Amino acid sequence: MNFCSDNVTGAAPEILAHLSAVNAEPMMPYGEDPVTARVDAALAAVFERAPGTMASFPVATGTAANALCLSAVVPPYGAVLCHRDAHINVDECGAPEHFTGGAKLIPLDGAAAKLTPETVAEALAAGWTGVVHHAQPACLSITQATEAGAVYTPDEVAALVDVAHAHGLMVHMDGARFANALVAVGCAAADMTWRAGVDLMSFGATKNGALAAEAAIFFRPELAESIAFRRKRAGHLFSKMRFLSAQLEAYLAGDLWLRNARHANAMAARLASGLVDVPGVSLADQVAANELFVHLPDGLAAHLRARGFAFYPWTAGGADCYRFVTAWCTAPADVDLLIETARGSAAA
Amino acid sequence: MNFCSDNVTGAAPEILAHLSAVNAEPMMPYGEDPVTARVDAALAAVFERAPGTMASFPVATGTAANALCLSAVVPPYGAVLCHRDAHINVDECGAPEHFTGGAKLIPLDGAAAKLTPETVAEALAAGWTGVVHHAQPACLSITQATEAGAVYTPDEVAALVDVAHAHGLMVHMDGARFANALVAVGCAAADMTWRAGVDLMSFGATKNGALAAEAAIFFRPELAESIAFRRKRAGHLFSKMRFLSAQLEAYLAGDLWLRNARHANAMAARLASGLVDVPGVSLADQVAANELFVHLPDGLAAHLRARGFAFYPWTAGGADCYRFVTAWCTAPADVDLLIETARGSAAA
Amino acid sequence: MNFCSDNVTGAAPEILAHLSAVNAEPMMPYGEDPVTARVDAALAAVFERAPGTMASFPVATGTAANALCLSAVVPPYGAVLCHRDAHINVDECGAPEHFTGGAKLIPLDGAAAKLTPETVAEALAAGWTGVVHHAQPACLSITQATEAGAVYTPDEVAALVDVAHAHGLMVHMDGARFANALVAVGCAAADMTWRAGVDLMSFGATKNGALAAEAAIFFRPELAESIAFRRKRAGHLFSKMRFLSAQLEAYLAGDLWLRNARHANAMAARLASGLVDVPGVSLADQVAANELFVHLPDGLAAHLRARGFAFYPWTAGGADCYRFVTAWCTAPADVDLLIETARGSAAA
Amino acid sequence: MNFCSDNVTGAAPEILAHLSAVNAEPMMPYGEDPVTARVDAALAAVFERAPGTMASFPVATGTAANALCLSAVVPPYGAVLCHRDAHINVDECGAPEHFTGGAKLIPLDGAAAKLTPETVAEALAAGWTGVVHHAQPACLSITQATEAGAVYTPDEVAALVDVAHAHGLMVHMDGARFANALVAVGCAAADMTWRAGVDLMSFGATKNGALAAEAAIFFRPELAESIAFRRKRAGHLFSKMRFLSAQLEAYLAGDLWLRNARHANAMAARLASGLVDVPGVSLADQVAANELFVHLPDGLAAHLRARGFAFYPWTAGGADCYRFVTAWCTAPADVDLLIETARGSAAA
Repeated sequence: MNFCSDNVTGAAPEILAHLSAVNAEPMMPYGEDPVTARVDAALAAVFERAPGTMASFPVATGTAANALCLSAVVPPYGAVLCHRDAHINVDECGAPEHFTGGAKLIPLDGAAAKLTPETVAEALAAGWTGVVHHAQPACLSITQATEAGAVYTPDEVAALVDVAHAHGLMVHMDGARFANALVAVGCAAADMTWRAGVDLMSFGATKNGALAAEAAIFFRPELAESIAFRRKRAGHLFSKMRFLSAQLEAYLAGDLWLRNARHANAMAARLASGLVDVPGVSLADQVAANELFVHLPDGLAAHLRARGFAFYPWTAGGADCYRFVTAWCTAPADVDLLIETARGSAAA
Repeated sequence: MNFCSDNVTGAAPEILAHLSAVNAEPMMPYGEDPVTARVDAALAAVFERAPGTMASFPVATGTAANALCLSAVVPPYGAVLCHRDAHINVDECGAPEHFTGGAKLIPLDGAAAKLTPETVAEALAAGWTGVVHHAQPACLSITQATEAGAVYTPDEVAALVDVAHAHGLMVHMDGARFANALVAVGCAAADMTWRAGVDLMSFGATKNGALAAEAAIFFRPELAESIAFRRKRAGHLFSKMRFLSAQLEAYLAGDLWLRNARHANAMAARLASGLVDVPGVSLADQVAANELFVHLPDGLAAHLRARGFAFYPWTAGGADCYRFVTAWCTAPADVDLLIETARGSAAA
Repeated sequence: MNFCSDNVTGAAPEILAHLSAVNAEPMMPYGEDPVTARVDAALAAVFERAPGTMASFPVATGTAANALCLSAVVPPYGAVLCHRDAHINVDECGAPEHFTGGAKLIPLDGAAAKLTPETVAEALAAGWTGVVHHAQPACLSITQATEAGAVYTPDEVAALVDVAHAHGLMVHMDGARFANALVAVGCAAADMTWRAGVDLMSFGATKNGALAAEAAIFFRPELAESIAFRRKRAGHLFSKMRFLSAQLEAYLAGDLWLRNARHANAMAARLASGLVDVPGVSLADQVAANELFVHLPDGLAAHLRARGFAFYPWTAGGADCYRFVTAWCTAPADVDLLIETARGSAAA
Repeated sequence: MNFCSDNVTGAAPEILAHLSAVNAEPMMPYGEDPVTARVDAALAAVFERAPGTMASFPVATGTAANALCLSAVVPPYGAVLCHRDAHINVDECGAPEHFTGGAKLIPLDGAAAKLTPETVAEALAAGWTGVVHHAQPACLSITQATEAGAVYTPDEVAALVDVAHAHGLMVHMDGARFANALVAVGCAAADMTWRAGVDLMSFGATKNGALAAEAAIFFRPELAESIAFRRKRAGHLFSKMRFLSAQLEAYLAGDLWLRNARHANAMAARLASGLVDVPGVSLADQVAANELFVHLPDGLAAHLRARGFAFYPWTAGGADCYRFVTAWCTAPADVDLLIETARGSAAA
């Protein structure tokens, strides 16, 4: 019963099955296959964009999607504003720096790993733009849902975009858990992104049921002119691209992505509502999507682990804080067993 | 009936099936799963190396494998000697330059895209080593089988290695079609590589039946110290690594990789022996593995294409030269139909 | 009367004169000249090192010296810990990122732009080392004197080095104002650097009387193996190297560098002692070397500027805070006139 | 008597003197000084351009000028076409690759290190442009005078530009010895460059009398938007910029640069006309500017060296081929003594 992360899960059966469905025929390589064309259209439909008015590039990892996106809009002498805890800042071993040719990430503070317009405005007020001694602010990157499990509303996104655009920065959304955020907020994908002013995004699928598939999406296609070349030279252009695209096709088909995300979020809510009643347990933060941060009383973490539950400490929340992540395939019975086990420990 | 490349094929059923086999259980991410550990051991067994004396890193593309390998042994101010037609030189949009931080590829000539010790020695005699004005020769990269379908014997590899090592260069083998070359030569994988002095290699599986899987292999593990970090920052560390590793596991299991390669090579030989009897057709080069280069008489290429055969021109061989690539799944009937169709055209 | 920075000054007459002294004869280029050899020996003598046990590389700018130093010890996937206000972090437009191939700077806090062992230890306790997701801490860089005009004592340097070395980091000193710090502390150059454990440094001369000359110095010569190549490919290997080396030769000869620094520091002290008696003026920080940060009462800054004094605001110290920098050539009369003008304004 | 290169010389007295002339007053740093503004205007005048219609950036080395120029017009996934012997290809330790973020240099052949429109057209006919697998041809770089001492006429430049522009490539001129080429051809600087279609150039001064000064010049200022930032992050923005600019100011004043170049060329012609009469001596190539390539009979090179003449072998011209370079300060008496010494050897 592994609550460490949504990336400990396998792949959704619909997605695995679709790999076989696209396997039989020879197809031209490097994205010249019909599956890839269909996925591009399906993504446009999901985002309510007319064909040709946005560009999508399937890749296999979120790090690749993020770094490619940033490399499109940030020159080597550029700077990216992001939260201090952003995946691009702490968990990609310098991928944005590598893909941009040495740009600089400017870490900003904010509760629950969220940025506010005030924080961004203050950072930009330092006046780096146009001054030759400083890296040039070029992009604001926000994570949806954030690394601390919070979500931005479309209005919050729009307010951040306003500040960024006013200073000439592009806005990138790291959507590794975009589906979870979207169903949590309950709006359209378009409202969450380009209608709020987002220029480009990393559209995640891996954590939510794919094997290894994400898409770099450009709502302003003119920003993507270099991406085909950058993807290739980063080793991320698959020869048998059909297998990357097929994952995304099945992910979107019949709203599998939204159903998977709703399930994951529901499991987190179920776990939270059960755990808060356990004596000594308290939520470190409200549960917005599929991540749960809780304070556990002495001994409870060890007790749970001894009974086969896996999860990570969250030291940012204090020595007694832990993170539980639910996923598209989390079994309600496992959630209930966890709650029951915690109750038993407290009673003992 | 697509003879354009072995990358137009789907995946071998054994490999697809194995994805499902490793899907059920949660597994720790980023290579901390049991499948990845088993693949590392299986690769060591294939190469007759004791555990821990070689290092393997699964990645999804041959470009990633090549560029990561080179980045391990070539500093930013380094130079890579390779054939003018090498994939790393002409078909990776500068991936080696990107991963090394700006190293230089030195293109050399040679028939059938093969290098000779003499050519390499002459290039190194230019005396760049140790002179601050010049990029520093750091690695010799050879392709097995070559981009023109030829293969190196172990003795030929060893002779190239001798020159390279004598000048302090590491030797990398781009094995995108390693299996095809290996069964063509009929020796052990170890004989073809580290016993002949090869230091590191890209071990290909995609063209020979995988969906998207290769491995960067280091026969001197101390060369690989930086690779885990470089792979991560290149976006090539998969969270659900099991799905990358599972492809390699199934690829090696029961010698699937060798059987697939033997089939592909046999189909090329069958095609060659049939085509040479067609009036006006001649081989541009001997058929060593699974690639066939032929001169076709006027009108034959158009005739074949009109009947549904796809293949590429090979302008390096002349205006009348074409390339046919067979694969692990090429149907003998398709080969025979192609021959028959060519004969029919000639007779008409 | 320009107190904006010590880089608004011209060059010391001794240094200018020495350019002519080395001009007459033909000399071999690219550092193969006798002047460069003599400078290398002179620097070794200044640092009390036996010939051959340290390596020096003259360059023309402090940014080049810093970035080259860092590139020697920080891999592309590495991280540099430094103060938030460090020149390498905010004033070099990403030069360290450029020269290292995309390493990451980790900004730390500290009063007067100084780091403490506690701050560094806390940052390293985050546990990035060895974890593939994170940039790998590789170097601690401290500035002597700091960007806020403070200095480290040898003991303070040693305490920082202890923390850094214990975690496997190299220690770099940005000595753009090394001479000013050295004479302020009053110790030997060796005590301030390698005897306290510093591994490599940027030795500044430009601000203290040269035209454009610094040296990248490696107290562990084995760290410098790549520097000759990196300097060349950064365009920093001068063909007529004699002219770069001659500046350093004259700078060191007869302790010109120490005399110049003592003068600059004395002028700052003189200015401080005069200004603090002016009603409404207070020091924002103690004056350690040749930089002065003061709070000025309403209208005084404008008054001084109207009378021809140039200087910068220092917003980090508050809206009423200003920076005055003295230099090797600052005229005592100008200092006195500034004080007198301030007094006059206060009296009015 | 050193004929190894024009970079073994010191600096012209006019240029050295001008350093002192600009030394006295404080000046704002980083190019905000009046000298730099005057040089920008002077360069525009030399090239007959209206103020503001071209942009110039002083730097200290030719490698920096070349690499900065290329970085302005070549993306990381781009390719530069140049002669196999071009300085950027063989003598800059990968500086273009470093500054561009990993672009590729495509070496082409041509007599006397000159390119022809046919060679360039043939290279571009390979059809890399727009194909994702290949580095994208972005710039043609030619050297004036070439590394083998030849010069292009304006018509030859224009013919190369036509091919490059027709394929969407920018044209860069490496003018390390631009003055020598210009006076050899006898045309206006504008005719040799932008009127023939050259988009950007490296304007050399170091070899022709400066200490260390070149300028990156953009005839289309919109190409230079990133250069101020790139120069800074490469460590090539001098704080005391006046000393870089002063060299260029004195270089251009009163046509010193043209006089120096005429002298250097005249000395080469004098040397050539004297040497060709020596039995056994023959010119390997016609003498266009200030470089001389000669075949020497057995023993003559050793004889000359024993008498104090220094010069380099030129193995590209054969085992008996040597290069002699004259400069702005070459003494006619030294030239005559060399000739006389050679005659004496032949007579003996």
